[in-house]
Amino acid sequence: MKVTASAPGKAILFGEHAVVYGKPAIAMAVNRRAIVTIQEGTNDQINVQIPELDVYGAIDLTDHQIKPLKTSPSQTKFSDTSSTSDNPASPSSIYDMGILKFIRNAIFNDQFQPDHGLDVQVELEIPIGAGLGSSAAITVATLAASASYHQEDLTLEKLAKMAHHVELDVQGAASPLDTTISTHGGFIYFTRKDGAVKINPALEMPLVVGYTSQPGNTGQLVAGVRKLHDDHPEIINPILDTIEKIANQARQAITNGDQQKVAELMNINQGLLDALGVNTNQLSNLVYQARSAGAIGSKLTGAGGGGSIIAYCPGKTQEVLERLKHVENAFQVNISPQGVTWE
Amino acid sequence: MKVTASAPGKAILFGEHAVVYGKPAIAMAVNRRAIVTIQEGTNDQINVQIPELDVYGAIDLTDHQIKPLKTSPSQTKFSDTSSTSDNPASPSSIYDMGILKFIRNAIFNDQFQPDHGLDVQVELEIPIGAGLGSSAAITVATLAASASYHQEDLTLEKLAKMAHHVELDVQGAASPLDTTISTHGGFIYFTRKDGAVKINPALEMPLVVGYTSQPGNTGQLVAGVRKLHDDHPEIINPILDTIEKIANQARQAITNGDQQKVAELMNINQGLLDALGVNTNQLSNLVYQARSAGAIGSKLTGAGGGGSIIAYCPGKTQEVLERLKHVENAFQVNISPQGVTWE
Repeated sequence: MKVTASAPGKAILFGEHAVVYGKPAIAMAVNRRAIVTIQEGTNDQINVQIPELDVYGAIDLTDHQIKPLKTSPSQTKFSDTSSTSDNPASPSSIYDMGILKFIRNAIFNDQFQPDHGLDVQVELEIPIGAGLGSSAAITVATLAASASYHQEDLTLEKLAKMAHHVELDVQGAASPLDTTISTHGGFIYFTRKDGAVKINPALEMPLVVGYTSQPGNTGQLVAGVRKLHDDHPEIINPILDTIEKIANQARQAITNGDQQKVAELMNINQGLLDALGVNTNQLSNLVYQARSAGAIGSKLTGAGGGGSIIAYCPGKTQEVLERLKHVENAFQVNISPQGVTWE
Repeated sequence: MKVTASAPGKAILFGEHAVVYGKPAIAMAVNRRAIVTIQEGTNDQINVQIPELDVYGAIDLTDHQIKPLKTSPSQTKFSDTSSTSDNPASPSSIYDMGILKFIRNAIFNDQFQPDHGLDVQVELEIPIGAGLGSSAAITVATLAASASYHQEDLTLEKLAKMAHHVELDVQGAASPLDTTISTHGGFIYFTRKDGAVKINPALEMPLVVGYTSQPGNTGQLVAGVRKLHDDHPEIINPILDTIEKIANQARQAITNGDQQKVAELMNINQGLLDALGVNTNQLSNLVYQARSAGAIGSKLTGAGGGGSIIAYCPGKTQEVLERLKHVENAFQVNISPQGVTWE
């Protein structure tokens, strides 16, 4: 038996960091996915292959220990930033082996578990450590393929919940935003209090993602904003309130199809993220290069401190893509209305 | 008879752009000056020399028309951005001839005027079009030298007022901030409503100024912020309010000698200026390069869109200076407690 499921990555459009303080964020699923295929194993282990990351590991059926199966002689092929490869999954070896924990916990979940070896093949179209939800996509797709393999019926709600628990177990802390978006697809307006609400966009959302070779450390960045907030509450609180207003106005602009407004709100949000101390010279350069190549809106996405920017560039996608590829690495995405899917 | 007067340039530390909306700004006079020497003329014109800009002009005694005296074969000497010249006055020929209007209006003011030719020599230690108050410094120094030449007694208040009128006449619009600071020196807390209040700093303020070869267009930048404000009042107003809070907290931090707080407030203010749309890739690069070289605070200064950044780097001045010189152009300044002075 051989089953395949896939789930999309995501890009946060508005509200990163402020979401930690109860403010809304807006994110969308993107048409770059993690595709997970599970079949009966060739031995009594869970053999996992992620060729794009050169990660090959085996998970013990009994004690769930992870062992590397092969170190990667060809690892440099992805670290070439001038690479014209169509697949943007980028290398970062410490990170890379860590990704196996998400797969392990998704396979050995508390609802269904294998009693024999499996071969798990992961195809990854999303760079990892770039704030684009690669771990959530891998987790959701692995859970979905696994449910299918075990012929378990899961509602999307249940799947999203299980995926969030995997992320919590592996990372210690995790927002349900990534796993929700990866499961359901589309545009989402998210608050800690009310969870995710789908938005129906009245506009196309062609984005160029520019990503740096350096992943940001989300924990450190969140702690840095917390310190700034605690040291300067009278200044940082109104900035967070303003990000909230931006997210709410952006939600309206997205449902009204007001491209220009969405773009201007992205640019303002970018400045406020700089004020929160999570911007970097590399990210700022990508943001400005994108604008000068024709993007009407551009900002960092996710935790910052490295990672990625998104550029909104209706009619100028190719120009912006070429420019950002020249500067660092870039690829094009569009909204993915599909969340998790089974083949 | 030969008289010399000089007046300092300035750097805005907090509140640029917000000041247009009635918010406070904080600025300091810097120890880079315009030095103006006036003596009896060699002919019946006002002959003006500004060697640092390669500007040589003559003003007619009767109709006050300005004529260029010499085009500048050696103009390239200042546009070499890798120049290690100690004098940062930078070239920009269209701008440069415009500077003569300030001198003309200062000499032919409504209180005292020459009835014979003069030779006016201007020594300029401040780059022009960089947001560092070069035109105010030239205006104040020219008025001061002129008053001395005509043996007129002027109070500093009167001098500042006359200098502001010169700027208004030449530019159509002008904040009295630059001419006030250039006249009085030191640190100033300024609002449109209450004018300038001196601050007594309890800290050293060694700054490195990094300046781009491209001047910002103040009028366009102010109009751009106005448009953003009018299009998104609910978002831009709280940003301006937050800049006000930053300026007020900075005033306290300066009088309390809290270096770290001053620096953090500069960094937050920088992000908010980015949110207002007046940052550029070049400025952002200088800001981040300064921080990575050891500045604890850095931000654009003045209108943005080009021009200058300031970096606050106690104990790291040399490192930051070298880095910014490598990237663009830079020089070191400190506070100038002296405003206008006569020799």
